[in-house]
Amino acid sequence: MSDVISIAKQARKAAIELSGWTTIQKNALLRQMADALLRHEHEILKANQQDLDAAVKAGQTIALLDRLSLDSSRLAQMAQGMHDVAALADPVGETISEQVRPNGLVLKKVRVPMGVVGIIYESRPNVTTDAAALTLKTSNAVILKGGKEAIHTNMAIIAALREGGAQAGLPEGALNLIEDTSRDAANALMKADGLVDVLIPRGGAGLISAVVQNSTVPVIQTGTGNCHVFVDETADIHMGVDIIVNAKTSRPGVCNAAETLLVHEKIADRFYPAAFAALKEKGVELRGDERAQRFGAKPATQEDYATEFLDLILAVKTVKNVEEAIEHINRFGTRHSETIVTRSGENAEKFQRFVDAACVYANASTRFTDGFEFGLGAEIGISTQKLHARGPMGLAELTTYKYYIDGEGQIR
Amino acid sequence: MSDVISIAKQARKAAIELSGWTTIQKNALLRQMADALLRHEHEILKANQQDLDAAVKAGQTIALLDRLSLDSSRLAQMAQGMHDVAALADPVGETISEQVRPNGLVLKKVRVPMGVVGIIYESRPNVTTDAAALTLKTSNAVILKGGKEAIHTNMAIIAALREGGAQAGLPEGALNLIEDTSRDAANALMKADGLVDVLIPRGGAGLISAVVQNSTVPVIQTGTGNCHVFVDETADIHMGVDIIVNAKTSRPGVCNAAETLLVHEKIADRFYPAAFAALKEKGVELRGDERAQRFGAKPATQEDYATEFLDLILAVKTVKNVEEAIEHINRFGTRHSETIVTRSGENAEKFQRFVDAACVYANASTRFTDGFEFGLGAEIGISTQKLHARGPMGLAELTTYKYYIDGEGQIR
Repeated sequence: MSDVISIAKQARKAAIELSGWTTIQKNALLRQMADALLRHEHEILKANQQDLDAAVKAGQTIALLDRLSLDSSRLAQMAQGMHDVAALADPVGETISEQVRPNGLVLKKVRVPMGVVGIIYESRPNVTTDAAALTLKTSNAVILKGGKEAIHTNMAIIAALREGGAQAGLPEGALNLIEDTSRDAANALMKADGLVDVLIPRGGAGLISAVVQNSTVPVIQTGTGNCHVFVDETADIHMGVDIIVNAKTSRPGVCNAAETLLVHEKIADRFYPAAFAALKEKGVELRGDERAQRFGAKPATQEDYATEFLDLILAVKTVKNVEEAIEHINRFGTRHSETIVTRSGENAEKFQRFVDAACVYANASTRFTDGFEFGLGAEIGISTQKLHARGPMGLAELTTYKYYIDGEGQIR
Repeated sequence: MSDVISIAKQARKAAIELSGWTTIQKNALLRQMADALLRHEHEILKANQQDLDAAVKAGQTIALLDRLSLDSSRLAQMAQGMHDVAALADPVGETISEQVRPNGLVLKKVRVPMGVVGIIYESRPNVTTDAAALTLKTSNAVILKGGKEAIHTNMAIIAALREGGAQAGLPEGALNLIEDTSRDAANALMKADGLVDVLIPRGGAGLISAVVQNSTVPVIQTGTGNCHVFVDETADIHMGVDIIVNAKTSRPGVCNAAETLLVHEKIADRFYPAAFAALKEKGVELRGDERAQRFGAKPATQEDYATEFLDLILAVKTVKNVEEAIEHINRFGTRHSETIVTRSGENAEKFQRFVDAACVYANASTRFTDGFEFGLGAEIGISTQKLHARGPMGLAELTTYKYYIDGEGQIR
């Protein structure tokens, strides 16, 4: 734990130094790091094999092995991702607003780095390069804490990135990996207030909730998505089917996938047969209320409506009207992404206004909630809280602001 | 505790309803509430007397009695404050940005209420009306938890505000006071994640730190200010004296008052005599390093540099250069407000860039860090964290945003 504190202290110093870096310096840094990543492909893949062997021995799931495993092509993608971030516009230094006060004080609100950003994540090694690129591009020092399954891979990646960084003059302490994979080390990071400015957990609901529960450092909650598709009375049935099939099945394991289908009772008898046929063809298990059961769904429990399945399972419920749909979503949703399929402008507006979520769609799939789809060029996560950032977070969301105030001796 | 949860649940419902209110409705609400406050002056002052009697009996300090006590004129100021907030522009509903994506999706980023805002504070009854006005003006439901010393006063104020609110159709559950003044009730509020969107503690360092340590609801840290005045080698001595005297003595008990004076060694022999004479005239006790002691300061300890005195005590230190001043501030400061007095544009820029604080001044007093002075028209507190808001927070800082996305059946 004392290791974590000394890492965080070094990171603070490095953050101050990084805040003086120019965009050109930072872009060169990211490119040098990407090149070093490719130069060290052999060592990284070897370390990855070590992690994979241990994971197999420990009886880990195929899904975990897939998330963990690297090859030349994945590594090349990671390096390309760093080049892509280097090519993005730098938000740091932007003047957000400027005013001259009646007393002559000149007040500038300027976008500045957060300082020290902590990222706690699980077994995907690409988070290591992504997070490093996004935080350093915004002049933040970063402390990474990856899952123990990926520790050798992450150590090899960080060694390569540091070598590339050294060539570009990266300050010591700017890019850190906590090698101690114990819970104590994670806890120390979560309690490092004053040293770490923000913690971003990336991973499953369990990880995120553990960080929220234990952290005294400000946290940005990300990712959990119990998303809904509501098919209104006036919906185009064909559009509704396309949207629920896409939202449920195009990538069922991601946070912007739909988990519950809500259907207006006046369209239910026409919508269910069409939708269920299409969903069953994609292998989706349906769990519904009585009305939905008439069309072949299994019975749903209350628990099903509260569950983020991340799988080919869909909860289904018939509702009286848009108000009941909104109420259901505000009760069970996780404030991520919600959509209404309707021909009524009034209902679309009501749904968008009263559904409490980061992204509220009308007549489109929830799957578009994504930093790239939103034009941010990158994504550090999708915030499901309301403080600081909401929805997809890109580079700007890794910054804060600061007031520069220039006077000529004003006193109050 | 179960009371707190049921209050929070009702507040959630009310928040959804409030999010549909127009600016005109909200302004009328605030005016009705202000009128009701004045109508109930008698009951409020009677309740206040009850609290004051109890406080005297309990041997509370004069400072606390002063903060707690109300009279006709203070009550009239509180009502006027509500009228002032009614007159401010409403940030809710503002379109922050709008774009059409290549796939035709129309993406609007719109400013919306936070939802349910919790405010934990101490004995000042004016926080009750201020916080109610600011949160309701931004369509938030609010849960207030004031200090036990002010409980009767707060109950009388809330009863009056609710009566005025009822006339304007305020939804039940929109304006709440937790009448249980126990620590358990405060803890229940801090753990109400999912029900409360943000907690803002207002008060001393002890209160704020307790909330940060215990809350699982996102918190905005406010207020603690260990602020510095750095007098650079090239400073105008007269300006430097004016600024340190103003920053230290114009209102020593507030968070934007200066606590430490840093002086460049090359100007020290000229600056100390002038500054110390002026400060001593105002009754300021000086605690300094050896150099400062030569001019009459008592010896300072390391602890003095870390202390927010909130009193007529000033720590003093001589530094080699602007870099050492920056380092000292980044080590001991609380990221609130810092100022440099200098004729060097280069040093001013360096200081503003590298000092890690919400408000960094050149040639002006730190006392200007304030929502009104910054033109926000109101203030809910001064954030010393970097997440969400930094420095003085007005109405906009009580909002978040939401994406409205309109499609024509787009799938991904």
